[in-house]
Amino acid sequence: MIKIGVIGVGYWGPNLIRNFFENCDFDMFICADVKQKRLELIKNKYPGLEVTKDYKKILNNPQIHAVAICTPVYSHYEIAKDALKAGKHVLIEKPMTSTSAQSIELVELAEKSNLTLMVDHTFIYTGAVQLIKQIVKGGEIGDLYYFDSVRINLGLFQHDINVIWDLAPHDISIMDHVINKPPEAVVATGVDHIGNGLEDVAYLTIYYPDNVIAHIHANWLSPVKIRQTLIAGKKKMVVWDDNQSTEKIKIYDTGIVVNKTDTEIYDTLIQYRTGDMYAPKVPNKEALADEVSHFAACIKNNEKPITDGTAGLNVVKILEASEKSIKARGKEIKL
Amino acid sequence: MIKIGVIGVGYWGPNLIRNFFENCDFDMFICADVKQKRLELIKNKYPGLEVTKDYKKILNNPQIHAVAICTPVYSHYEIAKDALKAGKHVLIEKPMTSTSAQSIELVELAEKSNLTLMVDHTFIYTGAVQLIKQIVKGGEIGDLYYFDSVRINLGLFQHDINVIWDLAPHDISIMDHVINKPPEAVVATGVDHIGNGLEDVAYLTIYYPDNVIAHIHANWLSPVKIRQTLIAGKKKMVVWDDNQSTEKIKIYDTGIVVNKTDTEIYDTLIQYRTGDMYAPKVPNKEALADEVSHFAACIKNNEKPITDGTAGLNVVKILEASEKSIKARGKEIKL
Amino acid sequence: MIKIGVIGVGYWGPNLIRNFFENCDFDMFICADVKQKRLELIKNKYPGLEVTKDYKKILNNPQIHAVAICTPVYSHYEIAKDALKAGKHVLIEKPMTSTSAQSIELVELAEKSNLTLMVDHTFIYTGAVQLIKQIVKGGEIGDLYYFDSVRINLGLFQHDINVIWDLAPHDISIMDHVINKPPEAVVATGVDHIGNGLEDVAYLTIYYPDNVIAHIHANWLSPVKIRQTLIAGKKKMVVWDDNQSTEKIKIYDTGIVVNKTDTEIYDTLIQYRTGDMYAPKVPNKEALADEVSHFAACIKNNEKPITDGTAGLNVVKILEASEKSIKARGKEIKL
Amino acid sequence: MIKIGVIGVGYWGPNLIRNFFENCDFDMFICADVKQKRLELIKNKYPGLEVTKDYKKILNNPQIHAVAICTPVYSHYEIAKDALKAGKHVLIEKPMTSTSAQSIELVELAEKSNLTLMVDHTFIYTGAVQLIKQIVKGGEIGDLYYFDSVRINLGLFQHDINVIWDLAPHDISIMDHVINKPPEAVVATGVDHIGNGLEDVAYLTIYYPDNVIAHIHANWLSPVKIRQTLIAGKKKMVVWDDNQSTEKIKIYDTGIVVNKTDTEIYDTLIQYRTGDMYAPKVPNKEALADEVSHFAACIKNNEKPITDGTAGLNVVKILEASEKSIKARGKEIKL
Repeated sequence: MIKIGVIGVGYWGPNLIRNFFENCDFDMFICADVKQKRLELIKNKYPGLEVTKDYKKILNNPQIHAVAICTPVYSHYEIAKDALKAGKHVLIEKPMTSTSAQSIELVELAEKSNLTLMVDHTFIYTGAVQLIKQIVKGGEIGDLYYFDSVRINLGLFQHDINVIWDLAPHDISIMDHVINKPPEAVVATGVDHIGNGLEDVAYLTIYYPDNVIAHIHANWLSPVKIRQTLIAGKKKMVVWDDNQSTEKIKIYDTGIVVNKTDTEIYDTLIQYRTGDMYAPKVPNKEALADEVSHFAACIKNNEKPITDGTAGLNVVKILEASEKSIKARGKEIKL
Repeated sequence: MIKIGVIGVGYWGPNLIRNFFENCDFDMFICADVKQKRLELIKNKYPGLEVTKDYKKILNNPQIHAVAICTPVYSHYEIAKDALKAGKHVLIEKPMTSTSAQSIELVELAEKSNLTLMVDHTFIYTGAVQLIKQIVKGGEIGDLYYFDSVRINLGLFQHDINVIWDLAPHDISIMDHVINKPPEAVVATGVDHIGNGLEDVAYLTIYYPDNVIAHIHANWLSPVKIRQTLIAGKKKMVVWDDNQSTEKIKIYDTGIVVNKTDTEIYDTLIQYRTGDMYAPKVPNKEALADEVSHFAACIKNNEKPITDGTAGLNVVKILEASEKSIKARGKEIKL
Repeated sequence: MIKIGVIGVGYWGPNLIRNFFENCDFDMFICADVKQKRLELIKNKYPGLEVTKDYKKILNNPQIHAVAICTPVYSHYEIAKDALKAGKHVLIEKPMTSTSAQSIELVELAEKSNLTLMVDHTFIYTGAVQLIKQIVKGGEIGDLYYFDSVRINLGLFQHDINVIWDLAPHDISIMDHVINKPPEAVVATGVDHIGNGLEDVAYLTIYYPDNVIAHIHANWLSPVKIRQTLIAGKKKMVVWDDNQSTEKIKIYDTGIVVNKTDTEIYDTLIQYRTGDMYAPKVPNKEALADEVSHFAACIKNNEKPITDGTAGLNVVKILEASEKSIKARGKEIKL
Repeated sequence: MIKIGVIGVGYWGPNLIRNFFENCDFDMFICADVKQKRLELIKNKYPGLEVTKDYKKILNNPQIHAVAICTPVYSHYEIAKDALKAGKHVLIEKPMTSTSAQSIELVELAEKSNLTLMVDHTFIYTGAVQLIKQIVKGGEIGDLYYFDSVRINLGLFQHDINVIWDLAPHDISIMDHVINKPPEAVVATGVDHIGNGLEDVAYLTIYYPDNVIAHIHANWLSPVKIRQTLIAGKKKMVVWDDNQSTEKIKIYDTGIVVNKTDTEIYDTLIQYRTGDMYAPKVPNKEALADEVSHFAACIKNNEKPITDGTAGLNVVKILEASEKSIKARGKEIKL
């Protein structure tokens, strides 16, 4: 059994605690938070769990093998560095760190120490994303044309990060996992309507090689909740509507046919075809349970997680570039 | 009765012909097209209508008071200039011209000649846009936050213009009409997947004063047809889904409340509230019929059309800027 | 060319006239209606068309081969009888007649005179119903369990027939075509809220052999328009939503598995399984055009139409039984 | 604090246990079930809870004030009778009993013993039903025309009751609560496709005075889950879609206008009007929590619950009549 501690038990931490409890590979026995009230809430639910206000107490405990870090983003780097230095395997909430330099440092540190460093990109472990990955990787949709994701709803405003850092890590991690190529550049636009310097509406374009383009619309000020991703290829196109409880993923046998004529480009004939639509059954499971199992397996077998530190770094790089671009009104930031 | 001729009877021209026939202010008696086949189709349907391959024959006819120009965009400027010089009132298909310089010239020419110059921004005459205009202008939604429009579907690829020039004029004309302020700058991204230099997927951000932002997603490669516009203000938010046959416009009594504390910006408390939703009945009428009536009224009363040459110019300016920006990967183009 | 006359040019007649004009097998040259105003409207649109207030003028014209009858239901029988006696092929609006006795008489008369008698069950010629017929007939859904159809909207109230006679002929003709077995009995319930003796909300259960059940909900007083049919079999289930412009038909690989145990019925284990969903492309065509072609082919080749007099009779029998049942508060009426 | 025991901890019992734990008026300290495994599951989750296989142990405990009965329907009557005789207040799962005679006996017994008898018609305590009740009672929709409810999905097949007894108690209790008049008669149709005598598809018409009609479609064999209720009045109409997470209830300002002319009924002019739609915010709360509070208040204040034994009896009467009607193929059963 892997003895694990959870650092930070605000919004997401309790979900991890529950999953560690339910997973037979883990022995969940301690958690830390700076807020006494949160510790009391946890203690109420899990009377047997040890709690502490000082996370270092966890790191100093030689019996602990691993920690999960669910604190605010700005503190990820320092706690994770401390944990790796203390010889603990680390699962870290997304986004991994506040800067790509910090992410690089953590990746190197984990590498050097031969420790598992995993980022909690939960969506990668959902049935929906696994199905999409398989469809794209297997070539069913043909050469990729674009990836377009809309993640908008009302609130929850964050105090320290803008809407891209808050919502887009989901889309970016999925995009990175599905496209699986290094992006070239980022162009971001957005506006802060409150006046605190944090954009609440933002648009993010990511350029990939081979004319592949990705776009993310992240928005805290939408009256309706939309979770829709379009992934189009030359042969087929996918619509993923994560708000639906059934028929989440629809695959359209739809595409274009280009007939180049001899004479000149002006004569290029572009026809589109529409065909059947197919909605494969998406396995209904808790992604976090799978993720936690994967974390255990990686620790035990000394393997790289699917969402390893490099995956975390890829997301942070794009977030960082988007911040530069958005402040410079859409300036292209090369990656 | 205003004697009118229609130049160009491809896709849209026949709709105008039908509406001129049904409107009692107009005497529709001649149309022109370079393609013999199209003239025959029209002749078949309206046996009494005169047809010609040479549009100048229409312009040279002193009995004709006005012309409608429904030819490809690149020819708008020359035909419109000829028509105005021949003393005809002009209704011109959107987008008005290929360059803003051309639009400016036409506006000045019409002004000088005291002729009506109107652009066929049909959406402005729909019940839906009229309702939205009224909601925004009347202050019901409060200070405007953003305008977000998605206009995506499969095909029809154009030979000579990209997806922004093809689809976005609708959204830009609506945006310009509703926001009713001069925009500051444009950032556009997009990609051409066919290799003919014409983007088929594009994203357009338009910056306005007072932190108002607008965004348009135009796409010829979507498996699903989406026509959705979000317009959010401080007090209320509007969702317009033009695909719906009923309940097209939904007004959400939804917004945010900002409580600035004395101490520091970090403590700003942002709360959101959700309330009732209201879907006012949208009058079901043919916009083009209203537009054609308005054209007649403007000619008769020597008044400026709602969608006058300046409105046409405003759209062309943004299209032109978007083209520059998209080729320079999101470079901000000041307007 | 089949010379054809149309009797009754109110709501539906003009659609038939247009289709006869567009079909090269027909020579459409005369129509009749008792209302002068309607004849003028038609004359306006088709200046070459002969019009008359007396339908007998059409029947007495020896040059005419066939007539289409689009008058109110109560007059169908007499006009059709006259037409058949005058040696004309007959296409008759649905429902065929006001009583099954009348329908039987017409079927026999047509048979005896060797004339084509066809009923305008337009839906049978849609791509959607043809696809459903093929799915059910081909065995893809397995043994049929039920057919459930909802056809509700606001108005149009009829003066002389209740909501079942007005709306349900569509569903009944589709049901009869798809199930293709003689029904056993009818149970109908409903209420008249206006006080004119005509039900505006009605529910119709039709019992078939082998535990197949059909149900139709017809309603003139619904705030929303619903056109939804569920057709479930042992192996698969179909949902047809005719309000949708795409993905009208969805086939669910969904069903139940019954494991009978040896001991007793109480132990019967019923499990259900859910699988993929599939939405085949439904051909988009005008059903009436196909129907009119089929009418021509049947006349020329002396063949029975798919929607022949017997199909029309089957619908009238159920309508008649439903009327008896509804007045007797759900009394079972054997067919 | 009201000391309470829960009898039956299968599917629904645990929800009650959780709510009794969370409610400060109740002291939840014992539960009973005949299955050891279920008791263990509960014990695991609530280590402090006493468990027993013999429900009489609960009834014989003089410290217990009240019990909740969540066993299979056939056992409700006996356990409830025992409980009332033992002087316990009773909350009983829906449907209340297997026969109306049993329900009557329980109502009388509770009355005589001055004990609270409440039926767990949970939906009555939802924000949605409370809103609908208020709209109908307040006269906003005018004279009621009909109540139409569809509750269909795939499975869960029950061993001992048909689909009406399983699903329709929800709709019947809501209908009874909203219409608030004694129904006149029931007509039910349905079919058993498995061969175990239990209908899996059923349709239920309930006649009310003043031409009000209600209809319920209950179905275990639907590929799609539908939870839709239409409630139409002379002035307005309501659509309640319980599958939606927002905009569950839509109120349409839609109706008909009847203009009776002097001459004859045939000339009655019926026009319909459509207007705005309005979706009031529906409070999002756990209905069961409110219900449990209400149970406590009724016990403490010796008041009749909203869903008292008579409400339970009303539902059972209709279920009983539907069973008779369905077996007699739609025979009208007077109530």
